[in-house]
Amino acid sequence: MIIIGIAGGTGCGKTTVVKKIAETLPPDNVAVIPLDSYYNQTDDLTPEQRRQINFDHPNAFDWDLLFEHISMLKNGKAVEQPTYSYVISNRLKETIHIEPKPVMIVEGIMSLIKKELRDLMDLKIFVDTDSDERLIRIIKRDVLERGRTAEMVMERYVNVLKPMHLEFIEPTKRYADIIIPQGGDNEKGISIIKKYILSIQ
Amino acid sequence: MIIIGIAGGTGCGKTTVVKKIAETLPPDNVAVIPLDSYYNQTDDLTPEQRRQINFDHPNAFDWDLLFEHISMLKNGKAVEQPTYSYVISNRLKETIHIEPKPVMIVEGIMSLIKKELRDLMDLKIFVDTDSDERLIRIIKRDVLERGRTAEMVMERYVNVLKPMHLEFIEPTKRYADIIIPQGGDNEKGISIIKKYILSIQ
Repeated sequence: MIIIGIAGGTGCGKTTVVKKIAETLPPDNVAVIPLDSYYNQTDDLTPEQRRQINFDHPNAFDWDLLFEHISMLKNGKAVEQPTYSYVISNRLKETIHIEPKPVMIVEGIMSLIKKELRDLMDLKIFVDTDSDERLIRIIKRDVLERGRTAEMVMERYVNVLKPMHLEFIEPTKRYADIIIPQGGDNEKGISIIKKYILSIQ
Repeated sequence: MIIIGIAGGTGCGKTTVVKKIAETLPPDNVAVIPLDSYYNQTDDLTPEQRRQINFDHPNAFDWDLLFEHISMLKNGKAVEQPTYSYVISNRLKETIHIEPKPVMIVEGIMSLIKKELRDLMDLKIFVDTDSDERLIRIIKRDVLERGRTAEMVMERYVNVLKPMHLEFIEPTKRYADIIIPQGGDNEKGISIIKKYILSIQ
């Protein structure tokens, strides 16, 4: 089994890169583990505390569970992946059954931040996109999908996303084996990664 | 023929990356074109003007000749590569006969700066190493090979190398298809590139 970590700031095009990599493999040979599914369970928090969660801070994630799951998959055991709802800021009851596959992709803004996780990975990729281009994508997405105004998104970007990015995401670039600039549009960069994955399978 | 451009700041480990890539190919299949060989001819300059040359500025290079040579090689024609002496700050009479090979590697700090050159390249690589690690290598090398003191090297670094890097080299990272962090020591990153080159040969 090959475990691939793909990190990069919000709006960098991680999902596109993951999709393009996954497409080159037979569907039965690949599974994606989104870091977003591993936000902390918040049963013990008050509604007010839940509203205060900073989803762009490493403390928001249940790293122990993610480590346990990746270790289990690596040992050939299936896991019950949690599902998370931003509406209630908590895990839902439903889980997703994930079987071990030849290629497992751990994808998320901070998937390279923990050494124990990095040590489980065979390939570490950082998707690096200009901050202005990331901002444009974040604005478009949040306006469209979350019904926010551009002003609201920009305020959140400046006050939360940008400082968290600089403090926690940008520094993980140094742990990458390879960096893909210009994100999901970089066909050549993605094809280089694809060829490598096919060759080590 | 595949033309590969490899750029990155002074001391980043470009040469090591080039060497490791070249080693995977049969010696007859690869040739390296060092940007350093294409500094301007300075016959029309006074000795004082030659001493003033800023070797870390794009204007120091004979881009027209480099473009002509790469175009010729791409068209299957051999070229006479100039040789340069830092002692006299001018070209030497000797040239190096370079035959076209299946893989041509254009290596140098600014090898990705010119669009016309980039357009000739099939693969564009930027070797990205932390600036402090680059500084350490530059100090060690210049003390050892050029008999300078660490103080002299650091002064030149701060006054010339660093500003030129930020102005002319760092921005070319965006043109790379792929970025190799941690330079020549990044075995995984280099092996990804090697596999790709072997696959497109």
